[in-house]
Amino acid sequence: MSGPLDNTMVIDFTRVLAGPYCTMILHNLGAEIIKIEKVVTGDDARSFGPFIDNRSAYFASLNYGKKSVALNLKNEDDLEQCKKLIEKADVVVENFRPGTMNKLGLGYNELKIKNPELIYAAISGFGHSGPESQEPAYDMIVQGRGGIMSLTGESDGTPVRVGASIGDITAGIYGAVGIISALFQRNKTGQGQKVDIAMLDCQVSILENAIARYVATGEIPGPLGSRHPSITPFQAFKTKDSWLIIAVGNEKHWEHFCQALNLTHLINSQLFGSNKKRTENQAKLEKIITKKTREYTAEKLLEVLKRHNVPCTKINSIADVLNDPQVIARNMIKDMDSIDGFKVAGNPIKMSKLTENYKAVRPPKIGEHNEEILNKYINSYNSSL
Amino acid sequence: MSGPLDNTMVIDFTRVLAGPYCTMILHNLGAEIIKIEKVVTGDDARSFGPFIDNRSAYFASLNYGKKSVALNLKNEDDLEQCKKLIEKADVVVENFRPGTMNKLGLGYNELKIKNPELIYAAISGFGHSGPESQEPAYDMIVQGRGGIMSLTGESDGTPVRVGASIGDITAGIYGAVGIISALFQRNKTGQGQKVDIAMLDCQVSILENAIARYVATGEIPGPLGSRHPSITPFQAFKTKDSWLIIAVGNEKHWEHFCQALNLTHLINSQLFGSNKKRTENQAKLEKIITKKTREYTAEKLLEVLKRHNVPCTKINSIADVLNDPQVIARNMIKDMDSIDGFKVAGNPIKMSKLTENYKAVRPPKIGEHNEEILNKYINSYNSSL
Repeated sequence: MSGPLDNTMVIDFTRVLAGPYCTMILHNLGAEIIKIEKVVTGDDARSFGPFIDNRSAYFASLNYGKKSVALNLKNEDDLEQCKKLIEKADVVVENFRPGTMNKLGLGYNELKIKNPELIYAAISGFGHSGPESQEPAYDMIVQGRGGIMSLTGESDGTPVRVGASIGDITAGIYGAVGIISALFQRNKTGQGQKVDIAMLDCQVSILENAIARYVATGEIPGPLGSRHPSITPFQAFKTKDSWLIIAVGNEKHWEHFCQALNLTHLINSQLFGSNKKRTENQAKLEKIITKKTREYTAEKLLEVLKRHNVPCTKINSIADVLNDPQVIARNMIKDMDSIDGFKVAGNPIKMSKLTENYKAVRPPKIGEHNEEILNKYINSYNSSL
Repeated sequence: MSGPLDNTMVIDFTRVLAGPYCTMILHNLGAEIIKIEKVVTGDDARSFGPFIDNRSAYFASLNYGKKSVALNLKNEDDLEQCKKLIEKADVVVENFRPGTMNKLGLGYNELKIKNPELIYAAISGFGHSGPESQEPAYDMIVQGRGGIMSLTGESDGTPVRVGASIGDITAGIYGAVGIISALFQRNKTGQGQKVDIAMLDCQVSILENAIARYVATGEIPGPLGSRHPSITPFQAFKTKDSWLIIAVGNEKHWEHFCQALNLTHLINSQLFGSNKKRTENQAKLEKIITKKTREYTAEKLLEVLKRHNVPCTKINSIADVLNDPQVIARNMIKDMDSIDGFKVAGNPIKMSKLTENYKAVRPPKIGEHNEEILNKYINSYNSSL
């Protein structure tokens, strides 16, 4: 592999999800990721199921291609070796509760004395400032507190979380933006800095037009099932067998949609002749459309609508996604070398000067790279004294 | 403002959401964002409600602090001026359907001849390669096709989209990662490159452990309401008045939780004595816990659980989020200068060498910066001949 972060050395103290997701992105761009793991047990995620050949598939999906150095940071010699590695590092990433790295003697203010070019990135639930900085956080907590759960679900249903841990994941992606920005800035200034990412902040930043709608109208937005708040028809409809998403995004699509379903009398009708009217009369329109869509299987309706250039899609299961021809063509599902049958999501950042591995490199065993890494960096460190 | 992308000039052809979200991130890191807009109508999002003083709150929330140059790209003089601007640019960003920029004479292969250092980022629904590259895409379509909708919703309910447009938004954030990586790489190579981001790819990349679960077990994951698939109790519970999220992430929390609700007989019980058992017997446990939580108001239960150090939270509405003390302390809700009462989400990337504006700078009027920008870059261009 060869990419923008070639020869960038990252010391990675992260565990479980937000942090490892961040360093997975850095790995996919060419960085060398050195996981510092607890001896014997390692990253907590190594014990999360499901397992393939006694190895955690959960762990593998986030830590492929990284290296592992097992150290006991409460042992003085090990801590010393860790500090020497950090002196050589471009980036340190951690997702402990704020203060933990300070207690270990590995806080940013300490580390930057010996390595002023170091970029230190901390990913935490609530950030390194503010009155609730120290509160424990899980994805579920920040999804609930950050507002997105109040927008997600059926309009008269029970609370629903987003089915992937986007509280962790968005923090991981934003962490990568911060780290790479700091690397770029260092080229100009010669100096490192601290990057401080809070999962809760990231949740607020993805609320999008919900904040604008609320401040402009005073109305608190709620969940709308599969519906778009201001475009109609733009939702899932029931067919004879399953659901189909139909996205009528403009008046041209509306015309085509009505033609496809023999509803041409609706095109310029009093009740549905504009998007504004359709949105006002959404419930009525949903009934009329559903009566039609129930006459088709999803497969057949998809074919009819595609022929009329109306944007639509089945709701893909994870099995469907793994077989989607466009997903496969983009190399977004990768096999893993040396673990038969295992697959991970590919890298969504396609760059003309990034040569990707076709397969994902398997994740490390705990401490697998102690010798390689300590020899490479600490020997060269000693010899440079 | 002063940050890592100071003196980075971005020519921004993007409209509506994924692209403008990406360049909003670049703005927040210090870049100069020059929106190239259609004369008279500008970015389509300028016509999206709600409105404050006849200005789109939707548009403002994504385009604050940017500059606007109105050009008719079908007019030869205007196109020429645009090309001259691009010769001076560090970055071009567009989110047209693949091929549109080529038709305008602004494809990457053409632009790089005069500006080999240019970074050209394209954000599209399905990417610039693959059999369905040309299909029309909306957030709703990629959410449905990318798998996340199959994981989100009540377990026996109707389809539910994620309540914010994360199809667009994750593509915007990943776009920023790609662009800044390319800027960093350019410092080493002196050369630009093309970045190609597909919304569908980004959806696949955030599925997280759902892919691992499926490939390891062969079981297709489905929606679970507010529940975590493998940790219990970790979900929303009904109280006397509203819902409360309780996140019992480990055995210590479980002990504290049982003590808080006078359920100590469950701690080491046959049915619920480990996370594995609790997950197997989730339905039974939910009934027992709900009987207890219904005795409390959400407010009171929150207080009791916090006192016992059990992670928990109310499900915040957008109004609640805007008043959350931690959100406010992190400057994650910003006022906008010169638009009274309007607020936008702040920048979640906190960096010690990034000085943020305390308020967001208002968005531009269509063509507001034609004179400033054309003078600055094209005059200096001419004089350098």
